[in-house]
Formats: sequence, C-alpha cells, structure tokens
Amino acid sequence: MATINANFLKLKAGYLFPEIARRVKAFTEENPDKAARVIRCGIGDVTEALPPAVVKAMHEGVDEMAARETFKGYGPEQGYEFLRQAIVDNQFAGLGIAADEIFISDGSKCDTGNILDIFGHDNRIAITDPVYPVYVDTNVMAGNTGDADANGAYEGLVYLPCNAANGFVAGLPEEKVDLIYLCYPNNPTGAVATRAQLAEWVAYARKNDAIILFDAAYEAFIQDPAIPRSIFEIEGARDCAIEFRSFSKNGGFTGVRCAYVIIPKSVTAKAPDGERVPLHRLWSRRHTTKFNGASYPVQKAAAAVFSPEGKQQVASLISHYMGNAKLLREATSAAGLPVFGGVNAPYVWVGCPAGLDSWGMFDKMLHDAQVVITPGAGFGAAGEGWFRISAFNSRASVEEVCRRLATLFAK
Amino acid sequence: MATINANFLKLKAGYLFPEIARRVKAFTEENPDKAARVIRCGIGDVTEALPPAVVKAMHEGVDEMAARETFKGYGPEQGYEFLRQAIVDNQFAGLGIAADEIFISDGSKCDTGNILDIFGHDNRIAITDPVYPVYVDTNVMAGNTGDADANGAYEGLVYLPCNAANGFVAGLPEEKVDLIYLCYPNNPTGAVATRAQLAEWVAYARKNDAIILFDAAYEAFIQDPAIPRSIFEIEGARDCAIEFRSFSKNGGFTGVRCAYVIIPKSVTAKAPDGERVPLHRLWSRRHTTKFNGASYPVQKAAAAVFSPEGKQQVASLISHYMGNAKLLREATSAAGLPVFGGVNAPYVWVGCPAGLDSWGMFDKMLHDAQVVITPGAGFGAAGEGWFRISAFNSRASVEEVCRRLATLFAK
Repeated sequence: MATINANFLKLKAGYLFPEIARRVKAFTEENPDKAARVIRCGIGDVTEALPPAVVKAMHEGVDEMAARETFKGYGPEQGYEFLRQAIVDNQFAGLGIAADEIFISDGSKCDTGNILDIFGHDNRIAITDPVYPVYVDTNVMAGNTGDADANGAYEGLVYLPCNAANGFVAGLPEEKVDLIYLCYPNNPTGAVATRAQLAEWVAYARKNDAIILFDAAYEAFIQDPAIPRSIFEIEGARDCAIEFRSFSKNGGFTGVRCAYVIIPKSVTAKAPDGERVPLHRLWSRRHTTKFNGASYPVQKAAAAVFSPEGKQQVASLISHYMGNAKLLREATSAAGLPVFGGVNAPYVWVGCPAGLDSWGMFDKMLHDAQVVITPGAGFGAAGEGWFRISAFNSRASVEEVCRRLATLFAK
Repeated sequence: MATINANFLKLKAGYLFPEIARRVKAFTEENPDKAARVIRCGIGDVTEALPPAVVKAMHEGVDEMAARETFKGYGPEQGYEFLRQAIVDNQFAGLGIAADEIFISDGSKCDTGNILDIFGHDNRIAITDPVYPVYVDTNVMAGNTGDADANGAYEGLVYLPCNAANGFVAGLPEEKVDLIYLCYPNNPTGAVATRAQLAEWVAYARKNDAIILFDAAYEAFIQDPAIPRSIFEIEGARDCAIEFRSFSKNGGFTGVRCAYVIIPKSVTAKAPDGERVPLHRLWSRRHTTKFNGASYPVQKAAAAVFSPEGKQQVASLISHYMGNAKLLREATSAAGLPVFGGVNAPYVWVGCPAGLDSWGMFDKMLHDAQVVITPGAGFGAAGEGWFRISAFNSRASVEEVCRRLATLFAK
C-alpha cells in the first residue's frame, strides 16, 4: 500500500499567491464591469519588457540551437562557464568567490526550497516573521516542523519577529539555532540590513556552528552604497553562509527563469560521526542528480545582463521601479498609514488602517479601489496588520494607484 | 551545530555521466592527437538542430518578452494552458486525461527525482536493474534505502533483474511493493513492454495498492503500433499510475528544457489515518511551492512540436535517429556481439566481448576506437557485461562508429 508524505497534511490553506489569484478571479467574475480597472500590485512580479541586450542575446542563443554545428544539448548541470564567470566578475569581484562555487538554476524559489535536501532533519531552524512563505512551507514538507497553531506558526520553527520596533530587521535568536533564513533587501517588508547587523549574524553563525541561508534576490534595488549587497561582503561569511541570487528582479526574468546559488567550498556542516562535510560537495551531487541545467538560450540571455548595454538597461529598469516605490511611499504616508521599505527595495510595507486586518485590507482595496495588494498575514503571524504594495508596475498604473489611495482615504 | 543529510554519504562514486565525462577528459588530455577523433555515443543526448517550427516559435516567444504589452512575468507554475491543452489533444486524445492533470516542468530528471517529495518513507520501492541512475540515487538521498553492498545494490530497494532471458523487460516482484519505477521504451536497454506486460503491471498495482511511476521519455521512438506509448492506454492505469514525458528526445530539447508529469486526479495513496489522498493535490502543492513555471519562450517552443510543421519535422528527426540505431544494431551484430534494443528506442544494448566487463569495454572503446559508450554496470549490477550505444548522432559519425567497430572486432 503506497503511502503519502503526511507532512503535506500539516500545510495550511493554499500557498499565498494562488489564494490571491483565486480572490481576484472571484471578484472579477462577480464584477465584470470592474475587471478592467483592476491594478495588480500583489505578487512581486516585474511588468516591464526584457532589456534589449537580453532579448538580442536570447535570440542569438535560439539561433545557435537552429544549426547542428552550434546546437547545444545537455549543458553542464551547474551552468555554463561563461555565465558563472560573468557572475563572479560582475557581482563578486574581490569577495573571494570562484566560478565553480556558483550553481546556475531555473529559479530562486526552487533553490531556496531544494537546499533543504542537503541538510539533516535535526537542525533547529530560524525564520524571520513575516517571511517569504516558501522557506516555511518547504520545511513543513520536509518534515522539519510539527503542526501549525491557530496563528499558522509551526511547532519546531524558531520565529524571529520583525516589527516596527526593530525596523523589521530580525535580531539574534535567544536560543541556539542551526539554520537561519535571512532575506535582505527583505521580501515582504522592504527592510535592509546594515553591515553591522549582518556582521552580528555572521558572528553568531560562526560561534554556534550555524549556516546562514541568505536570499539576496533583491540586491539590485539597494540604493545606499553603505548597505551590503552580498553576505560575502562580511568577513567570515565564507565559512558559514550560502547565498541565493536571481535574474528575476534585475533582468526581469520572472517569466524567463534563471537564478543561482553561491556555496563557498569552505562552508561545512557535520555528519553523524562528527566529520565536517563541505556543503558544496553535497549540493553539487544534488544538483547534478536532480537537475539538468538551465535552458541554454536563457543562460545566454542572463549573461547579457552583465554586458555594458545590459547593465545600463537594468539600471534604468531599477530606477523606474524605485521611482514607483517613492510615489507609493508618499501616497501611503499621505493616507496617514505607517510606512516601511521602498527605499532600497521594490516593496512598500504599510500598516493597515484602524479596524482592518491584513485580509480585510486586501478585500477593501480589491472591492473599493480595484487594487491588488498582498496581505501581510500571508507572510506570517507577525505580518498581521500590515500589507505589501509592490512597485513592479508601469508609472501610469502606480500614479493611478496613488490617486485611488488618496480617494479611498479621503472618504 | 548544523548537520548534513547523511544519506548523501551512502551514494557511491559520482553520478554516471560526470564519471564518463571525467574519463573522456583524461583520455583527450593524455592523447591530444586523438582528441578530434573521439565520437560520443555515451550520454543519451540529441545532436541535431531544433526543428525549424520550434525555433520560429521560440523566437516569437522572445519577441513577446521584448514589449511590455506582450511581456510575460511569472506564468502558472503548472504551465500555460495552451501547452497543457496541446499535450492532451496530441498525446492523450481518447485516454481520459484532462489538461489540469498535466504539470509542465523544466525536465524529467527533475520530475522523476522530485516526485519522491510527495511519498512516505515507508514505501517498499521496486526498481528495474539496469536502470536510469536518477531513480536510485534520489531514493538514496531521500533516505529510502540503507547502504550499498559491494555490487552497488542498496539495502531496502527491490531490484527487478532484467536480462537476456526476459528480454530486458522486468517481471513482477515476488514480494509486495508500493512504488514501481518502469521506463519503456527503456533507458538503457532499449527494450519495450507489450500491452500484455503493462496490463500485468497495472493489475499488480491495483491489487497491491501500489503506484507505478512510468517514464515514457522515449515514447516518440516507438515504431511498432502495437506497443503502448502511454501507461494510460492500459485500462485501470488512471487509478494507479503517474507518467513522465519530455520534449528532450522528440523535439530535441535537452538544452532547451521542457518536460511534464501526468497525474490523474483518481490516483491516490494512503495517509497515516487510512484516508486516501489524491496525489494530484499533493503534487500541485509541491509544484506551486517549489517551482515557478518553465520559461515562457520554452513553453511556446514546446507547443510548436505539435504544430503540423513541428510534427513533420519531429518525425523526420526520429526517423534519422532510428536509421542510426539500425546501423548500430547491424554493426554490433556483425561484430558477433549479442544485441538488444534499437528497434523501438534510440539505444542499442550490447553484450561485452568475452573477457571484458562494462568499464573494461568502455576503456577499450575509448582507447582503441575513440568511441564513447556507456558501461552497462553504470546502470546497476545487472547491467554488468553490457554496454549502451546511443543512436543520437549524425549519420556520418554513426557510419564511422560502425567502421571502427568492424576494424576493432576484425583484429
């Protein structure tokens, strides 16, 4: 008799974004006259066209596949050397990262979920709250948690509350933990960690023999030169950190799919006999056994992000989105709501008006203003009372959202 | 103190294909004068250009990403409706499969590995021997096995020996099992299962409440109309089978990356409380949580495989490769070696000459003829004494391989 992985039964409701999609679909079906008015600031998805340099390179990649002399079949599972080297040269120069410490993949969602494959089930796991739901759900699926309580908090996870008091940057845990998920610039709160704050985390990890899983998917949005873009800018991180990066939010690859993991060869964790095993070796085995490389034309396209034209075009995209973030910050502030984020990140994190919880505010914004936001409670119990507005949109749509916010809160 | 998944330490040596790549690299570095002579018939990788209809569609997909009006960000994790529907219409017409039972992914290697996420660790798992190594290695990583013995067989797995006596088609296990991996047309042996043989498996699965994981990545190579292309051609399979399909070997997508899993909603397995849970629901949760959809231009390209031009072009590719298979069968037969496969599959499975084991034959073919084959032992203990030649090559290279085989065995 075949049995299921019963850990799946512990998962609460649907994954956040499908649930949002369901509510929006229901609203537009019930209100067909308002369907065209809906502006989506919910899911953190880019809206602008791919940079021309990326388009050109992807076409070239496709053309190579069209002739047997230049055709590419299976590539190296870890990614093509040209892309791994371009990443090192352009993103990690001077940080001591080698090209063979980069593993190309088809997305950070996969990477941050799959990374658990190489760890034991006896690790104590710390997760900030609110948090990207994938970190939590994949731990539930892997059997690293107990059941959820009434607030949706899973037994066995160590939640690090982020709130207005700590500026939505998690402090060190009071108890000893082994794996720590950090994401800066943060999704969903838009918070960034200073060099001093990250140095504290690295010191904690080294002292406690813990591993930091550092999600830097949004590094391209950092405007302040004093804010680290990589955990590897911190002395000692090479011994205790894994970093996740993506082309989704800089190059606009959410529909193209390319990301990467950086695992320095010096990061180790313990085997049952006490031996220290390099995580690079385990991930390499996992990656070559359960993955077959990212699409070749996609890797060509990703490398073009680092061409001189590509860099300029990406900078202009980032500047567009950050201009949106500024407008959204101003409009929500003007509405009298507490506002965080949106300065070094494409997410503006806003307190709900008195009397509304997160999903209440979601429904109000959808029904009264036809603006889709993301309810903070979808990111964890500590997100209750907050909501996220994404700056990924056209300028015209953002201006319209700002007008609707003004109208809604003038009532 | 962070700990590793110690199951990784049970894995033997490297994954087969990296090991082959290593030996070829070592040979060409030691024999630079012979490097240009090397013909690769090892890894099962296509060699011919993408079909023009596919190239055209992929370019169109890239162009859509180049303008904000047609730009696509995150798509549905399960794949675009246009592709899921095209698959149903073209591959499963009349078999009762619905579009929402199709899950698009970036590769069958990922799918066949990841599927274990939704099953319990207490399942008794049957695997044919020889077998595609990914099935075994992912079970080891998941902790579903004990240690390997001297032959590389893992404790806890039920091996179903395939050999010349049974025509390399596995018979039913003597003990009761819960999960059964079947792959027809088979990698590596090129064997196909008849309708009667598959019906026996479906009857076994239904009787024993087992699940069949059916890998049909090579269905496009079936020439005999009496051989089923899908497990769902067998009455009752909708209640007990999951099928894996790929665009790698029909459309030539090994470097482009697209595949799919078919999970009928009627397939269930048991929760600890005895409740029957639809595997469709679990995989849907897994897929939406740990995967973010296949690349949009890739999905456009995949759908073009089913256009009238695409079908014709794929048929011509298949015919090319099957012509190669025929030549390789003839040449190895003429060399006096026992030969299986190569009739409804792109792999020719050949017995080693007296006195040579699989890796011995691999080294002999590499050193004496500069032909890369795949040693049968790399696919499991029962593959010892056999080797696989892949028909994925140009006609000229295959003809040259045939000449070298003739010379080598004339000595």
